[in-house]
Order: sequence, then C-alpha cells, then structure tokens
Amino acid sequence: MQKTAAILAIGDEILSGRTRDANMHYLAGWLTERGVDLMEARVVPDNAQMIGEALNALRERYDYVFTCGGIGPTHDDITIDAIAAALGRPVIEHPRAAAMVRAYYKGKGDEVTPARLRMARTPDGAELIENPVSGAPGVRIENVFVMAGVPKIFQAMLNAIEGEIEHGVRLYSFAATARNLPESTLSDQLRDIQAALKDVTLGSYPIEGDEKGVTVVARSPDADTAKKAINAVAAAMRALGFEPEMEDRKKK
Amino acid sequence: MQKTAAILAIGDEILSGRTRDANMHYLAGWLTERGVDLMEARVVPDNAQMIGEALNALRERYDYVFTCGGIGPTHDDITIDAIAAALGRPVIEHPRAAAMVRAYYKGKGDEVTPARLRMARTPDGAELIENPVSGAPGVRIENVFVMAGVPKIFQAMLNAIEGEIEHGVRLYSFAATARNLPESTLSDQLRDIQAALKDVTLGSYPIEGDEKGVTVVARSPDADTAKKAINAVAAAMRALGFEPEMEDRKKK
Repeated sequence: MQKTAAILAIGDEILSGRTRDANMHYLAGWLTERGVDLMEARVVPDNAQMIGEALNALRERYDYVFTCGGIGPTHDDITIDAIAAALGRPVIEHPRAAAMVRAYYKGKGDEVTPARLRMARTPDGAELIENPVSGAPGVRIENVFVMAGVPKIFQAMLNAIEGEIEHGVRLYSFAATARNLPESTLSDQLRDIQAALKDVTLGSYPIEGDEKGVTVVARSPDADTAKKAINAVAAAMRALGFEPEMEDRKKK
Repeated sequence: MQKTAAILAIGDEILSGRTRDANMHYLAGWLTERGVDLMEARVVPDNAQMIGEALNALRERYDYVFTCGGIGPTHDDITIDAIAAALGRPVIEHPRAAAMVRAYYKGKGDEVTPARLRMARTPDGAELIENPVSGAPGVRIENVFVMAGVPKIFQAMLNAIEGEIEHGVRLYSFAATARNLPESTLSDQLRDIQAALKDVTLGSYPIEGDEKGVTVVARSPDADTAKKAINAVAAAMRALGFEPEMEDRKKK
C-alpha cells in the first residue's frame, strides 16, 4: 500500500507574507523520491486551537504528518504545547532532549538557560529527531513528525528520519515541452490520449514567464506505460508542427 | 471588523514537488497591505472531493477564499466543476465569459475551439474576474474568488478585484535584527516585554542561512505601541552587547 503524507506549516510570519515557506516544496520532492504521496498541505498561524484542529484532521487521514515551525526557545513558539493538547498528552521535559540541549550549549561554552531548556519539552511519550545543525531536537509522536521551520534544520531533520519512512512505488515520469504551442490547441488530443490509456496520469502545464508553450507530464508506476503516453503526446505535438523537447522528469 | 481570508491552491504538480507555489506568498503580502488577515492556506490535489471539502471548510470560516489553479483548457483542469459541486450549483457556459474567450482568440487570429470555450464555463450565478494576460476570465461566486495558477495571471486577477476587497486596519510593523545574537539568549527579555505590553505581538525569527542572529518583529494596529515595543527589544539587545539594525517592515 502506497503511504500518504501531509505537511502542516505553522507560523504567523508565513501568513503575513514576511517569510516565504520553503519546506513544503522541499518535502514534496523528498517524499516523491521515496514513493510517498504528499496529499495535502496546510499553513496555520501560531494559534493553539487552529494548530490542533488542523493536526487532528491530517493525522487521522494520512499515514505521516510533518509539521514545521514554532519549536524554538521564544514565547511565540507554541507548537509543542498545541500538539500535546491535540493529542491529549501532557508536556514533559524529555530527559534525553534536555541532555542534548545541555551538551550543545556546553560544547559552545554557552549557558544552559531555562529558555534554552524549553526546547527539551515534548509531548509525553515522544521520540526525538536528531538536529545536527543547532542541537535542539525535533519530536516524533505517533504518526506526527514535529520539525523546525528553518529550512536548513528542517532538511537535516528529514535526513535523520530517513529510516522511519516506509518507501512506496515511485512514479515514472516523463515530460514533453512544446514551445509556442498554446495549451488549448493540444487539449483535445490530450483528452483522447488520457482516455485511451490506463494507469497513467497526464498533467498539462503552461510554461511560466514570458515564453509561451506547454509542458505535458505523464506519470505512472509503470515505466513503459508512462513512456508510451508521452510518446503519444509527442506525436500529437509534432502533428501540430511543434517539435517537442523530451525530458525524464526524475520521478516527479 | 477586520476581514479574514484563506487561500486554496489546487494542483497535483505542487504536491509532487514539480512546481513551487508562488501565489500564497504573493497573496499574503497583498492582503497584509490591505489590512486583511490571511488566516489559513491549503494545497490539495486535482481531486474534486478534496477540493470541495477544503473549499467548504474555508468559505464557511473566512470572509474571502481565493483559489488558484486548475481553470485551464485541458482535461486535468477540474476546479470549476469541483467548486460548482461544492456549492450545489450547476455549471453553465457563461455568455459574457464565452464572448471574452471568443474575442481573445479572434483577436489573435486563432480558432475558437470547444476546448478553449471550456474556459468560459462557470458555476451558475458567478461574476467574472478580468484576465488581461490570457483572455479566459476568473470567477467570483459568493465569497470565493476562483483564479488562475500561473503567477502572472493570478496577480493580474488580483488587480482586477481590487475594488471588491474591503480593507481593514493595517498593522504597523517594526523589526530589530541583532546579528550573532542567538534567539535563545534573548527569549526571557522578549517574554517580559510581551507580557508588559498590550495590543502588540512580538515575533522572533532566527536569521536564516549561514549567518546567526535573530530578527524580532513587533506588530500592532497602533504605530506608537509597535514602536514602543521594538524600542524595548532594541534596548534589551544593546544590554546584551549587540547593536540592532532597525527596520520599518512595511506593515508585514
């Protein structure tokens, strides 16, 4: 069975436009490479009730939920408390997390303040996710991975949980791009090709920016099926007088 | 009353990692400039049921819902049908939308095919959103704005609905950045400043990338309150031996 996932990005700064989230896109590619289907993404503010509602909706529906943001040392970092409340668990100071935070700051010759030890708080029963970048660990609790919002740390934490994610069937994906061919000129042919083939999905995307044209992507768990579909699309492009550029889309 | 909003981005290509969504971030800034609170963002695949569920959750909860993606001429563009179904309305060919699509393609000397006229389909009772970039209009239905996924077109459609969005109170926002000051060193002071002041929100954000340090943002509907808060933060930074860089955050 193919595994499914969702991401919940937490932070006022994303919704105010101050910060552009980068973790959703990174996670999407990372999961696709591992044959896990990212089914949904949400962004909510630093509001315990909204975090809890979104988390509970997502964790019941999908195999894995990744959160990012709100696990730092300051007063506006409420993710751990909100997630613990949503799971009906108390928050504890996790002994091994506290040891990790202590070791990190002692190693730098810095003081271990109560604020820094805040980053050792977890919902009761959590496992830790190593953070090689800045010491304070992430948290796994049930099917929820609670990760940092800073992209470099988020990505390092993903590396750390590599072994905990069950890989699925990777989709084979091939693309054909016809520059200057309007998407709408090709749509009848795409519909017919899609209707004639099973187990393949054709996606059609206008080229962005100033250049006009269309990229069609054929995705399938079977390489031959995907290849057959994209060859039919390429033939349709040529019949309209446009020589396509072909591309192995690296399984996205 | 401050108005609230949500964005629903629709498209397999975002969740597969092929495309990085840009509309959420753009809309967040656009709404913030107009004093509208973006409360939530979601991304769902090209799946009618998931689009409908998300839309119905968001449109009941917020004043405005913006969707982007899935309104093109090809078989994988199902947003209009999914939204009509969620609203319990039939899909019609909108006479003025059809006229707009006809005029656009005739103006380019192109044929008006059935596939192109697909872009004139709307839920019954919809108003149109002008599209100066590529002819096919967006759709307003109840409190839902159905817009294109291509960022250039999405942004042009936002311009077109300027008059339909009720502006609210813009937050005044000031920032202080202390390079090389770890966020966790400042957290007690931030907590105290936050506790002492009303009607202001302090956000603390580690500087991203290789450089270490922290940016604190004070946001308030009252300029003096925001300024007072950020000055207190700056004083705390100086007391720790770090000279802050001050910035008017342009109301984000």
